[in-house]
Amino acid sequence: MNTIGLVAFALVGATKAIREEFDMFGVTVVGLATAFAGGMARDILVNRVPLALNSPIEIGLGLFGVGLAIGVSAALKSADTHLVTLLSDAIGLAAFTTTGAIVATQADIPAFGVVAIATINAAGGGAVADILLDRSPFILLDDFYASCAVLGGSTYWIVATAGGSNGTAAAVCAAVVVGTRIAALIYGWSIPTAQVLGLTRE
Amino acid sequence: MNTIGLVAFALVGATKAIREEFDMFGVTVVGLATAFAGGMARDILVNRVPLALNSPIEIGLGLFGVGLAIGVSAALKSADTHLVTLLSDAIGLAAFTTTGAIVATQADIPAFGVVAIATINAAGGGAVADILLDRSPFILLDDFYASCAVLGGSTYWIVATAGGSNGTAAAVCAAVVVGTRIAALIYGWSIPTAQVLGLTRE
Amino acid sequence: MNTIGLVAFALVGATKAIREEFDMFGVTVVGLATAFAGGMARDILVNRVPLALNSPIEIGLGLFGVGLAIGVSAALKSADTHLVTLLSDAIGLAAFTTTGAIVATQADIPAFGVVAIATINAAGGGAVADILLDRSPFILLDDFYASCAVLGGSTYWIVATAGGSNGTAAAVCAAVVVGTRIAALIYGWSIPTAQVLGLTRE
Repeated sequence: MNTIGLVAFALVGATKAIREEFDMFGVTVVGLATAFAGGMARDILVNRVPLALNSPIEIGLGLFGVGLAIGVSAALKSADTHLVTLLSDAIGLAAFTTTGAIVATQADIPAFGVVAIATINAAGGGAVADILLDRSPFILLDDFYASCAVLGGSTYWIVATAGGSNGTAAAVCAAVVVGTRIAALIYGWSIPTAQVLGLTRE
Repeated sequence: MNTIGLVAFALVGATKAIREEFDMFGVTVVGLATAFAGGMARDILVNRVPLALNSPIEIGLGLFGVGLAIGVSAALKSADTHLVTLLSDAIGLAAFTTTGAIVATQADIPAFGVVAIATINAAGGGAVADILLDRSPFILLDDFYASCAVLGGSTYWIVATAGGSNGTAAAVCAAVVVGTRIAALIYGWSIPTAQVLGLTRE
Repeated sequence: MNTIGLVAFALVGATKAIREEFDMFGVTVVGLATAFAGGMARDILVNRVPLALNSPIEIGLGLFGVGLAIGVSAALKSADTHLVTLLSDAIGLAAFTTTGAIVATQADIPAFGVVAIATINAAGGGAVADILLDRSPFILLDDFYASCAVLGGSTYWIVATAGGSNGTAAAVCAAVVVGTRIAALIYGWSIPTAQVLGLTRE
């Protein structure tokens, strides 16, 4: 799970940085930050030592994703909004939501915390990448992205609490995230703003 | 103390995000981040496990503040600069300065650290909210905001060191923060820039 | 080492904030953040308690650097791009790369981690300062800055692994960083973007 997520998110982050004309060092840093920031935030929140820096294999996977991003950017126009990148992103989102939910459940964190940590693990990398690219994290604007992680994390918790095995919970969680994310892309789902809901005066 | 601060800051942060037309998910995240970021930074700095994610009650208080923000935005024009919001903010600032000073004192941190942690606890949430809203943290620009927390934290340390009880120190600290913040709003206090002080050449 | 870095980076960060017309409180915060953020990130990553807040001496050094920045800004035109500031920055970069490499080596972290932590220690302060100043961290754009820390950290690891004493490794590391940084400034080195390398389609 984690392996897929690392490669997919490094690919997505590096592709965005290439589009913004960051230099190759910056591209590598944004790619690695996208891949690792969510997991590090999770580790700090559940009080584990962030292990990524101790793991040459994980770093290698991140660098592999950055390499893929360079290849994809060379091969495709508008690589950062291409189907390949969007699918990688959906898969990475699912992989990290599941990893986050598993780690939080093992750390004996209650329901809300499991969902929050799964969401932070999944969406944190993208949010950090956006801050490095000097824009508001897109997940907070009108989109249906982190919400997929919220749904997936909730599903994991429900299945695990209902007595499902970890494997079952993980599989259902990943399926929910990928499914809702792809549906959101196809049908253009978004969460309304207070303005759209008529909840503001101006 | 902490209870008041959580509700007040979630209200303030969510109101700002509504103004910026973030979607309802983003509004919730910015509200919760404003309420919890300062306390989490404090916990990491004094090496406590950030407890917010383990506490359904605190999360509930934060969500209650977000709900209030939606109500306030529906009821008032320009809710983010309305008197209600500014007063909530002053009260939240006082509550979190006091909480930060108490926690830092209990952790046996010396004078400068007590003031720094009280200030980070109080102003950190607003700074994180501003970064999420993609602007420079307003506390660093010409305003008199974090300075109230610095004055309050210093007062707490002086009263506690002079032999005052924790309760006395907390009450005086909160009063100093609310008083200076309201005075700053009424009289338009601000800290000068180096340019205003004639300290630069151009 | 650390002493020099703290003063130099507080000077550099505060000078930038003065240029951006932050108020004196903001100037102090950006100066201290530039000086301490890299070291704090390092401490959190190697699971040490961030010690800066417990150390009145280190805080004093940071404030001394902020004071120097005010003096330099009063004395020089365009202080933030003046030779004095650029040299301070190069010296701070070398000092913090070396400190980071020493701490990471003592924490028994493998090769990639030593280089990563040395780089984060050295470049993290500047990156945080840029986020506070609401711009993309310059180290990720076309420049040759963090790369000096990568080269220095790698050198430290190679010398230490080859049997050199800590003192030797530190001296060689610092020399490499200052040397490459000054050369980069003189000759205008920069790392190419994917666009320059012809790796993108548009």
